[in-house]
Amino acid sequence: MSLDFRIEITSGKARAGRLFTPHAEIETPVFMPVGTLASVKAIPQDTLEELGAQIILGNTYHLYLRPGVETVRRMGGLHGFMSWPRAILTDSGGFQVFSLNELRKVSEEGVTFRSHLDGSSHFFSPESAMEAQIGLGADIIMAFDECTEFPADRERTRASMELTARWAARSKKYFEEHKHEVPWAGNVRVGTAAPGCPAEQSSAPEPSDFATPSVGSGQGHQQASFRSPGQPGAAVPTQSLFGIVQGGMDRELRRESALRTIEIGFPGYSIGGLSVGEPRELTREIVESTLEHLPADKPRYLMGVGTPEEIVEYANLGVDMMDCVLPTRAARHGLLFTSEGKVSIKQARYAQDPNPLDPNCACRVCRRYSRAYLRHLYASNEVLAQVLNTIHNLSFYLDTMRRVRHSIRLGEECGFLSSVWSRPKP
Amino acid sequence: MSLDFRIEITSGKARAGRLFTPHAEIETPVFMPVGTLASVKAIPQDTLEELGAQIILGNTYHLYLRPGVETVRRMGGLHGFMSWPRAILTDSGGFQVFSLNELRKVSEEGVTFRSHLDGSSHFFSPESAMEAQIGLGADIIMAFDECTEFPADRERTRASMELTARWAARSKKYFEEHKHEVPWAGNVRVGTAAPGCPAEQSSAPEPSDFATPSVGSGQGHQQASFRSPGQPGAAVPTQSLFGIVQGGMDRELRRESALRTIEIGFPGYSIGGLSVGEPRELTREIVESTLEHLPADKPRYLMGVGTPEEIVEYANLGVDMMDCVLPTRAARHGLLFTSEGKVSIKQARYAQDPNPLDPNCACRVCRRYSRAYLRHLYASNEVLAQVLNTIHNLSFYLDTMRRVRHSIRLGEECGFLSSVWSRPKP
Repeated sequence: MSLDFRIEITSGKARAGRLFTPHAEIETPVFMPVGTLASVKAIPQDTLEELGAQIILGNTYHLYLRPGVETVRRMGGLHGFMSWPRAILTDSGGFQVFSLNELRKVSEEGVTFRSHLDGSSHFFSPESAMEAQIGLGADIIMAFDECTEFPADRERTRASMELTARWAARSKKYFEEHKHEVPWAGNVRVGTAAPGCPAEQSSAPEPSDFATPSVGSGQGHQQASFRSPGQPGAAVPTQSLFGIVQGGMDRELRRESALRTIEIGFPGYSIGGLSVGEPRELTREIVESTLEHLPADKPRYLMGVGTPEEIVEYANLGVDMMDCVLPTRAARHGLLFTSEGKVSIKQARYAQDPNPLDPNCACRVCRRYSRAYLRHLYASNEVLAQVLNTIHNLSFYLDTMRRVRHSIRLGEECGFLSSVWSRPKP
Repeated sequence: MSLDFRIEITSGKARAGRLFTPHAEIETPVFMPVGTLASVKAIPQDTLEELGAQIILGNTYHLYLRPGVETVRRMGGLHGFMSWPRAILTDSGGFQVFSLNELRKVSEEGVTFRSHLDGSSHFFSPESAMEAQIGLGADIIMAFDECTEFPADRERTRASMELTARWAARSKKYFEEHKHEVPWAGNVRVGTAAPGCPAEQSSAPEPSDFATPSVGSGQGHQQASFRSPGQPGAAVPTQSLFGIVQGGMDRELRRESALRTIEIGFPGYSIGGLSVGEPRELTREIVESTLEHLPADKPRYLMGVGTPEEIVEYANLGVDMMDCVLPTRAARHGLLFTSEGKVSIKQARYAQDPNPLDPNCACRVCRRYSRAYLRHLYASNEVLAQVLNTIHNLSFYLDTMRRVRHSIRLGEECGFLSSVWSRPKP
């Protein structure tokens, strides 16, 4: 077993806890910044550490094409390749291939698709997607699934959900037979990661099979009982494979998908196939109903959401993990999230505004730079605009989740954003 | 007087010393990173501080167009606008306008030119260039000059040199009458800069009219005798205006330009009009002969050079200040400077190279990332490639100048780069 999840407190449906992977201790609910190509765009890894990111996401489809799984594997997996000593999660490639639309062809065996880079033909099956993800070596990996398109009729949605269930069983089978092949097998220490990955410079945590609690939350909890590598019969840490619940916008098919996925058995469960064009109210309904069928003691990962309001809302519903390109992508387009609402920094109104972007934010951007300067950088197409805007947006998302966790521990409803964000813009 | 320059030791023609401006103490010879649009491209200001940059350069022409002088002035000048508490130097706009080629027209009064952004028509005179530079508020500013094209015949070169001399006198006259208008007049403290510019976070230097020595070089030197602001009759720090020597590739005209510029009288002298397409050997000849005519006790600034070998060579000749876009521009194109020679990181040979970019470099990029990762970022067009490559190249340039200064203090010829760099590439 390479994953330990502890719910430390609940408040309504929301849960606050900790997830222990071979490379990090993660406070949940957690937002995971997206690093598609082994880089959270524009942000150096030491800045991510300063921001407090404990887990980031990589995209298997993109990494498979560039630089290729074998290159990453030889460098000790993603941890070594990108020199990121904390936790990593990879998706299965299923959603990315789904996004290719006309470039893909699905069969029982798997998906044939064409590269968006050069049109070359490739094939992903549950087995090859697992092989790729084992080579990439993330802490948490995903079963290969089919993301059902929206809209889809019930027959199509059921067939797709059933295919995902069969693929989940094949994914698990391959993973169990090959999980010892992860590049860092037997070599991992918290904070030191895979061979080739320099040790974390900002702290020197104690070596142990798993992350030991180091965040001073004031909340005591039981120590993990994993045996250390020096002990006879010590467990070798491996990756953890999550199952994915599909079933489109049909609550009954979602329930069936959840039950079938749970029957196969995974250490964590993802909710996929949402944010594919459906109305947000429908997303919420499906999330809420699906969560009812997932085991309370396992981490629940809602894939690909969302806005700041949405991540707060879903955490309130009992989601433990989320990821989204929104904070990073919006930043690169000059759309910034603040405690006072959204700011489109390109607007001329900010040209001589000496105030910080967000007066309530303590990130290094808000501490140092004015709106006027950020507006100038964006208007002048300076690379630094992308860097600073991304730092702020990630800081805002990660701070938002910190506040959510704090609210849960205080037993409050985490509604602090809704009052600001639903206000008309000033 | 707002500039203090002290030569602490000489070795051959080379000099090592310190330049005190209202915002920084600068060890010379110094290389100044270029921040054209109030940003050293891709690099946050705190990273520049960590790299040890004590002075950076801004381009008046570009800043005049975007965001405009008035915007910068209202934010406390460039220091406040870009939140950079250390020293800044601006060029006069003359060279940039010269680069516009067909878009400019020169008269005795000044230069009419068209914006490269939108084709709009503008006019720079010595007076308006001073007005712009006073509004931008750099520590060191440049007289408005005409950069003579290459090649040019003797008559054309003489006429251009004489125009530059007349413009130098007009520049000085306007500056002396208006220098009190600098946005930070009377407000500056070392490390705190202009109003609106947050105090430097990494250190808390003592307040004083001028930078106090804080770098532990082991070389004692006399304390400045400037009166502190609290004393009666305290001097108010202002900008310093440098004259520019022109004269094309003609040693006699360079001598005449130097003498005429010295006669007008400036606290420092720049050598302009080089690196405009002439052979490098000719550049060296003109630099060497021009330096002979410049006063030994004033800082000498060679504008717009050069490669790592060149900045070492010119420092050996007695140049105190240099700037160039090469380290930052080359970085963005994947050309990296290392102690072992140039590296074109885009090459496939680095795709699986686990070694640091430069094994002899202690910058945060070489400490953390592999060549394979840097190659992947560049090949994938990731923004982080520009960030990391620029950090390394700037670190290499600033380290090179540190080694030059160290060599001068040891009385050695600073030739450490030539043996590596003249070697054929491995």
